[in-house]
Amino acid sequence: MEILKKLVKKDIKSKIVLIVLDGVGDLPVKDDKTPLELAKTPNLDKLSQRSATGLHIPVDLGITPGSGPGHLGLFGYEPLKLEIGRGILEALGVGLDVRETDVAIRGNFATVRYEGERPIVIDRRAGRIPTEENKRIITKIAEKIKKIDEAEVILCSGREHRFSLILRFPHKVTPHAERVNDTDPQATGKSPLLPQGETPEAEKVASIAKKFIEVTADILRDEPKANYVLLRGFSVKPDIEPFPLKFGLRSACIAVYPMYKGLARLVDMDVITFEGETFEDELRVLREWWESYDFFFIHVKKTDSYGEDGNFEGKVKVIEDFDAHLPEVLALKPEVLAITGDHSTPCVMKSHSWHPVPVLINSPYVLGGLSQRFTERECFKGELGLFPSYKLMPLLLAHALRLQKYGA
Amino acid sequence: MEILKKLVKKDIKSKIVLIVLDGVGDLPVKDDKTPLELAKTPNLDKLSQRSATGLHIPVDLGITPGSGPGHLGLFGYEPLKLEIGRGILEALGVGLDVRETDVAIRGNFATVRYEGERPIVIDRRAGRIPTEENKRIITKIAEKIKKIDEAEVILCSGREHRFSLILRFPHKVTPHAERVNDTDPQATGKSPLLPQGETPEAEKVASIAKKFIEVTADILRDEPKANYVLLRGFSVKPDIEPFPLKFGLRSACIAVYPMYKGLARLVDMDVITFEGETFEDELRVLREWWESYDFFFIHVKKTDSYGEDGNFEGKVKVIEDFDAHLPEVLALKPEVLAITGDHSTPCVMKSHSWHPVPVLINSPYVLGGLSQRFTERECFKGELGLFPSYKLMPLLLAHALRLQKYGA
Repeated sequence: MEILKKLVKKDIKSKIVLIVLDGVGDLPVKDDKTPLELAKTPNLDKLSQRSATGLHIPVDLGITPGSGPGHLGLFGYEPLKLEIGRGILEALGVGLDVRETDVAIRGNFATVRYEGERPIVIDRRAGRIPTEENKRIITKIAEKIKKIDEAEVILCSGREHRFSLILRFPHKVTPHAERVNDTDPQATGKSPLLPQGETPEAEKVASIAKKFIEVTADILRDEPKANYVLLRGFSVKPDIEPFPLKFGLRSACIAVYPMYKGLARLVDMDVITFEGETFEDELRVLREWWESYDFFFIHVKKTDSYGEDGNFEGKVKVIEDFDAHLPEVLALKPEVLAITGDHSTPCVMKSHSWHPVPVLINSPYVLGGLSQRFTERECFKGELGLFPSYKLMPLLLAHALRLQKYGA
Repeated sequence: MEILKKLVKKDIKSKIVLIVLDGVGDLPVKDDKTPLELAKTPNLDKLSQRSATGLHIPVDLGITPGSGPGHLGLFGYEPLKLEIGRGILEALGVGLDVRETDVAIRGNFATVRYEGERPIVIDRRAGRIPTEENKRIITKIAEKIKKIDEAEVILCSGREHRFSLILRFPHKVTPHAERVNDTDPQATGKSPLLPQGETPEAEKVASIAKKFIEVTADILRDEPKANYVLLRGFSVKPDIEPFPLKFGLRSACIAVYPMYKGLARLVDMDVITFEGETFEDELRVLREWWESYDFFFIHVKKTDSYGEDGNFEGKVKVIEDFDAHLPEVLALKPEVLAITGDHSTPCVMKSHSWHPVPVLINSPYVLGGLSQRFTERECFKGELGLFPSYKLMPLLLAHALRLQKYGA
């Protein structure tokens, strides 16, 4: 889609709202109906009857996306061409800000025993210590390690045994500085591996990581379970063309959870900070900032959370709550409104899945009349057909009359 | 689609007729109906019930094609891989023949004032002079400039301030000979740019263009408005595999408007010259030449023209007129008949658009029974689904039993 950049118009006033109901796609859960089919959604029904509908494929047929690839696809980037390191995603997930000066790393607390000075891993996850325990230990480490060599050390607890580590350098990190092996031996009874770098720059990162491991081993020596750290997924911020530049849109993210704010920040959207965590709160923010942006990405998390829990009644309720507030979005009269998910999270699977995701585009330039409701099965009748998720952005730009004609 | 060439059979007798109703795809205009839905088309209805139907995507999702990419896609070429220079398209549009010996350039008449000898652009479009005025001025220039250095100079008026200039060399032009900058400064108050070439060959072209600009400035010095020329879009005929060779088809174009005849000539179809400009005239020509060709491209322009005017009643009439004559096409019993458009031209947009275009393939080898009519919404139910336009030709060859099996 190199051509797209040449076709993007500037100085257009139309507004685009993209609402992502995380993991909204599903499979039948009761009476052969999916949560979208079970939900009472009079507003969404009416809207889908006068919208373009279809389904998008997040990565490729049969491929289940994580939140990273799922959202990057919706943001118009080909997920398979843009790999986001695990360390980056972990950092975004806990709410850390990842910069061009950073190497981001996933950490696990582990339990080791010592043979002389040699550590032997006896539990790779330190018995999945409680998150509260993790927080106490991270505070203990963070108080003692502020900096190693030239790198500032930034730490944040994740869930159970997981944590996030950022090495922040006083300069932009060079390409391949992240090429350091995982230290997790992937099996108990073995010693953790030593971090080693593939390039001179990576060697420097590996050396700092080695010192971090050694010093934490000292600090944690008396912990009953979490007495060692394993590091994985060394990664740097990928070289991504900024979203506002790529599509010519002043862009804002309205999201509650750190991962989605992080993903939006990764592509250089403005992330709006606000109080509250309901869709109603998000709509208040949308109204407040309406004049300042051309593009709004609004994230609704709970559809996915209930899917992961296998709680279809909860998922139905979130959808119905969204439907009840839909008229407030329509009242703002965006030129283009898109509603979709980043992937499916079927309640019967309690996990993300590869299934195509319903999508609806409302604009003055749709055929419409093909889907009676915004459900998986009704969307298959729609005019958008089945398409790769990264083609959604060109479609939204087209409907917002923000693309020039290609060729004469 | 490299494989296609290996599979194309020779010495097959089946005939393929491709009828392009330019810009036929549309959006609802009245009673939630599109022009195709409003039109009374008993013959087309019957035909679509026993045809393969679907919709094609001209360039890519969200991308609005010009006539060039639109037709090249239908002719089986990937539009994004085959860029046709603006100068070429302009020349084809006014009916000039573009050869391998030519550099084609778009010209604009402009108004300049002089600071000493230095021209300053005060109107980049010479007040959009009337086309008649343009014709008078082009005649005046053409009488005085026949040749510059080794290049024959060919001129043709376009609409308002536009004209087409071809520099025809006594030999095939070398690659990159067209790499000359636009001379339009893109703003008033500035001097026109001097043409400069990026390669030695282009330098020669630039030098001729410079002389053309200087001599026309002298000729036009006393014109009140059009007293200068700006040149843009230097281009050469692209290197296209000839259509008859690519698909093993003796091929003919039956079209009224210069652009479409030019596009057909660009891919080496034979362009049949005839009197008249109605679909009835085109059908007479089809019958006359029936035995001489395997493939006929028949172009109907008015569906697009009425779309551009926003005149849905006009568009409906053209479709009904086409329907009335459809039995005459069927009477010739082509093995394969395809009916489609090169893009959509929704009346509500008064312009080309990115929307998928209905397509119908009739042959003895279709499933059929899926679409009740040849309309946007009915075609979404069809067996061809949504597919890129450049895949139409392989489908037509297949239905004409002109492709071998791939692999054993």
